[in-house]
Formats: sequence, structure tokens, C-alpha cells
Amino acid sequence: MTAAQPGRIMAGEMAEQPEALRRVLAHGAPEIRRVAEAIAARAPRFVLLTARGTSDNAALYAKYLLEIQLGLPCGLTSMSTTTAYEAKQDLTDVLVITVSQSGGSPDLVASTRAAREAGAITLAVTNNPDSPLAGVSEYHIDVQAGPEKALPATKTYTASLLALYLFVEGMRGGHGEAAAALPELAEQILARQDEVKALAQRYRFAERMVLTSRGFGYPTAKEAALKLMETSYIPALSYSGADLLHGPLAMVDNVSPVIAIVTDGRGGEALQPVLDRLRDRGADLVVVGPQAQVDAAAGGFALPTAGVAEEVQPILEILPLQLLAYEVTIARGQDPDAPRSLAKVTETR
Amino acid sequence: MTAAQPGRIMAGEMAEQPEALRRVLAHGAPEIRRVAEAIAARAPRFVLLTARGTSDNAALYAKYLLEIQLGLPCGLTSMSTTTAYEAKQDLTDVLVITVSQSGGSPDLVASTRAAREAGAITLAVTNNPDSPLAGVSEYHIDVQAGPEKALPATKTYTASLLALYLFVEGMRGGHGEAAAALPELAEQILARQDEVKALAQRYRFAERMVLTSRGFGYPTAKEAALKLMETSYIPALSYSGADLLHGPLAMVDNVSPVIAIVTDGRGGEALQPVLDRLRDRGADLVVVGPQAQVDAAAGGFALPTAGVAEEVQPILEILPLQLLAYEVTIARGQDPDAPRSLAKVTETR
Repeated sequence: MTAAQPGRIMAGEMAEQPEALRRVLAHGAPEIRRVAEAIAARAPRFVLLTARGTSDNAALYAKYLLEIQLGLPCGLTSMSTTTAYEAKQDLTDVLVITVSQSGGSPDLVASTRAAREAGAITLAVTNNPDSPLAGVSEYHIDVQAGPEKALPATKTYTASLLALYLFVEGMRGGHGEAAAALPELAEQILARQDEVKALAQRYRFAERMVLTSRGFGYPTAKEAALKLMETSYIPALSYSGADLLHGPLAMVDNVSPVIAIVTDGRGGEALQPVLDRLRDRGADLVVVGPQAQVDAAAGGFALPTAGVAEEVQPILEILPLQLLAYEVTIARGQDPDAPRSLAKVTETR
Repeated sequence: MTAAQPGRIMAGEMAEQPEALRRVLAHGAPEIRRVAEAIAARAPRFVLLTARGTSDNAALYAKYLLEIQLGLPCGLTSMSTTTAYEAKQDLTDVLVITVSQSGGSPDLVASTRAAREAGAITLAVTNNPDSPLAGVSEYHIDVQAGPEKALPATKTYTASLLALYLFVEGMRGGHGEAAAALPELAEQILARQDEVKALAQRYRFAERMVLTSRGFGYPTAKEAALKLMETSYIPALSYSGADLLHGPLAMVDNVSPVIAIVTDGRGGEALQPVLDRLRDRGADLVVVGPQAQVDAAAGGFALPTAGVAEEVQPILEILPLQLLAYEVTIARGQDPDAPRSLAKVTETR
């Protein structure tokens, strides 16, 4: 798996993202809409989302969409309740969405099978229509990202977000127009790798990092922390801005750099008091968000959010943070393609 | 708030826990049972749990109980969906449980009020029956822990766990016999502070820590990480054992000590492959759990779990970890009573 040139595989897959997004919009959308309409017709009352790792962050994004755009109460599954404790639940009227890049984890297959037997409507969102997970689910959405070889997932994450956005749009009878500009904007962002490379110098010797956001940006904070941790091994802690004030703030000082993901919209507004508090404490605050927020911080990466609906911004926000994980790892002399001790399909049961 | 003797307030409140547990069993139980029966009669189909900080870990414990013991699908609320995005949800047949030590956070009051207006059955679990949160909720359970003055919550956490256990028992028509032995066992554990003090030396110079568990022990891992972080400021990361294998494992090496909470039961069994993997990697593994698991690790704290039902073990597991947070903080020359920059009631909106 280790390439002659460290990070070559991850770099290539990050670069494919605009094309992967175009593919979802052009070729994936009609089938996603058909699935969404079929599920909407069955009028689920509650949604459970099941996933692990990067896919869990995609599931969290879907949770915000389902709650905000559809008003559907949602929960994230505690998988061990079915796999270890064999809890018997009545899942009538419940939509269970399982998100998995590989569709191969035995525990996801087992919990999805159990959910279907318990009466749930089951939907798998995977990058592999031939996977066991797709097989046991009643409905399937293929995120069409193409084979992903690097251990840190990148293109399957953004493709999953877009597929989930189009699914929720389809559920409410929308057409997902807000997504049309994303491939072009993603291209613009990825072309600014030099800016990220400069920013990465800041974290070369960091011993820990804190990532924070609120609302639609919160899954981005979690995914960025995971990406940084699995590539660079820097302990990266992620908190919703509100939770950060409930304890972990004690840990933030001038040796704990903070990266805030500031969504252009209500999530960013709700984060404002947290940003002010961090500045009061003298935290080293870097922002990924609108230019004005970057200007008010110690540094950052300005996103082209003007005219972009808040609910699709997470598909752009993660891009500079994937690049950052990559660049920090290269700067530390490690190989982002092959983090020690990880396997691409994690066989937890 | 700072005492002449650092940690005097926190130490006093930790020591009160057996008495607080006795109070819940003797004086709280009848009212908890009445509330549980009234709610069970309304046959909720889903449960949403809302909380922040330490109370969020108590809510996660309740999620495992509700899913495993009652088979009720559950979710943890993403609060910003109502407070920032004003999502309108149909919460008919949904039980919304809000857990808050103070009952005073404006965002919890707002989201509970919104849930009630959306048709939910609302239950507040607080340490203050006169709080605004208790006021806006249809039902209320008082955890009767007495005033809590130290910033790190301890006795309100264990009292909340016990109250939530008795509530779920009441929902299913049980009597919660498994809890009867807890006050006595809690006393035995707290009497072993010297053992914890010796263990604390190991972490005096730690730059990060990882906590892991599965099933019923997972809320303990999260609460222990929060306690360590808010008192000692050591970045403490918590993962379910399964999630640890999906990325964060790359960060674990011989300079990242791991504390595993091994529940005596199915959760501990499900964690076994993760423990084996950590040992293979040469991780510094310390266990809080049954004696045999401690013996197989580099060290730990043996819990008296023989004959104790797995679902109430979390009420004991957290005790040595509270003591550990306290002792590590004292060893580092800091004051556990007054972590920098925290307020007892966090006024997030």
C-alpha cells in the first residue's frame, strides 16, 4: 500500500472529488430520487443512522438534514445494543440508514439485517453495490466514487454527503438545485493547496488540536479531527461549540490550537459567542469559513460561500481540512497513504 | 470558589456518593416509579435524549438502558436543530428526556419547550425541582444529590444514573433490585483511594490519554475522559472500542496510555478483540473492571462486579475514574475544584 511517493494515493483521490461530485449529480441523482420517493411514500416517522468512522460523520450530516429539512426525529445507532446485547426493538415506521464506504463490515451487516427483521425500512448508502450490506438492505444508494485505495477516506466522504443531500431533497420533493455549483467550487478550493501547505506549518509540532463548529458544520469538525488523527497521529479533539464550553474549554490555552469551522448561516451565528470566548482566552484560533471570519481570526482558509446554501456547505468545508491533514502529515515526515495499524475494512463485530 | 486546600470541595462531594445513592433508593424511588408508570401508560414509540457535558454521558447511559431493556429506539438530540435552525418536528409518541444537573441552561429549556409544543411527552431529570427546566417539562425526576459546588460534577452524575436506571425499571414494571447493593459497594470502592493515588503517578506527565469501552461501559469512558480533561487539562480522547479500530488506533502507541473500562458482561466480551489488538501494539493498557482483566493488563483498578448486574455497573465504574481525575490533578499541582474558565451553569443558547 505504501507508495514510492508518500501520500500519492490520497492526493490523487482528493483531486478526483470534483469529478466524483459531477458523477453523483449526473448519473446518481435519478436513482437516488427514485429511492427517496419510494421511501417517502412509506412515511417513516423516525430515522436511525448506523455507521462507523468517516461514514459516521456522513451519517451525522444526514441527521442534521433530516431533522432540519424534513422535521424527522433521528438517532445515531449504538450498534452494540443489537450486536452484543441482542436487543429486540420494534422498528415499525422507522427508517434505518446504514452508511459504509465498503459495505463490508460484519457488524453493520448484522445490525442492518436485525433492523429489517424488526420491521424497519432499510437503506444502505455505500460505494459498492455488490457489497453484503447492499445485499441485506431493502434499498441501496451507490455513491459512485470509484475505488478508494488510500486508507484515509476522502472522495467517498464528499460523495456520500452529496448522495445523502440529494436523498433528503428527494424525500421532500425538492430537486437539490443548491448542489449544482459544488463541483466547480470544489475545483477552485482544491486548486489552493499552496495556501493549505503554508497553514500546515503552524501544526507541524502541535501536540494536540481542538476542532469546533455548530449545526451543519459540526460533522465537518468531527471528520477533520478524524482525518488529522489517522494521518498525522496528532490527538485532535472535536466538540460542538456548546459542548466545548461545558468542560473541555479548560484544556484550551495558547498551546492548544483551535480550528473553527464557521458555516455561513445560522450554524455560524450560533458559534459566534464561542469564537468570542476563545479569542478572550487568547486561543490560537484558525477559521475555515467566510472571508470576514478568517480575517477576524489568527489565520484560516476562506471558503467561497457567497450564494451557497448552508446545508451543502459541508461538502466544501471538508476539502481544505483533508488537504491540511495531508500537508501536516507530509510536513511531519509520515505517509498519509498508510497510517500504521489501520485496515481499510474494519472487521469489528 | 477556590478552597484553601485544593480539591477539598470535589473530594467532599465524591465521598457523599454512597449517601446520595441511598437517598435515591430510599426517598426518590417511589416518585420515580410513579413517573415511569404514567409515561409507560402513554406508550412512547421513540425516545430523544437531550443534555450537555456530564449530563450527556448520563443520557447516553439511559440510551443503552432504553434500547436494551425496553427495545425502544432512541436518539441523542442535536440541540442546534431547534435552537439555531428552528426545525419543526412532529414529536407525537416521542418521549423527550432532558438531563441537566442545574436545570438552568437556556438552550435546554428552549429545546424542551419546543419539544412539548411539538407533541412530545417531556421528562426532565435534574438536581433542582425549582429549576426552569423542571418547570417547562410535563414530568420531573429529582435526583436529590444535594447542592453540588465543585465545578467537576460527580455526585450528580452517579445519582442521575441511578435515577435513570430506576426510571427504566419502572417503565418495564421491574423493581430495580440490582441497585440495592450499590451504596455499600460504592463505599468499598471509595475507601480504596490510595490505590488510585498510586495509579495517578503513571499519568502525572501524560500528554494525552485514550479511554475506551463498549456497550454499558461506553458512557463511563466518555465521562472519565471529560472529568480528566476538565480537571487535569490532559487531552483525553474517548472511543467505543469498535470506533477506535476505525482510525484513531493509528494515534495509539507507547506514548498514548489507554484506559479500558471492561464491563463484566456482554460489553466486556465485545471489547475483548480490541484489548487484544491494543496489547499486540504494545499500548500501555490499564483496566477498570474485573480482577482477571486487571491482571491481564499493565495495571488497573479491580471492581467488585461479582453478582452485580451489568446494567448497573456504570454507577460503580466511574468512581475510581473520578478519583483518578482528582489525584492526577493534585499530582500536577492544580486545583480540581476550580478548573480555569468554566462556569457551573453554562449559558449556551
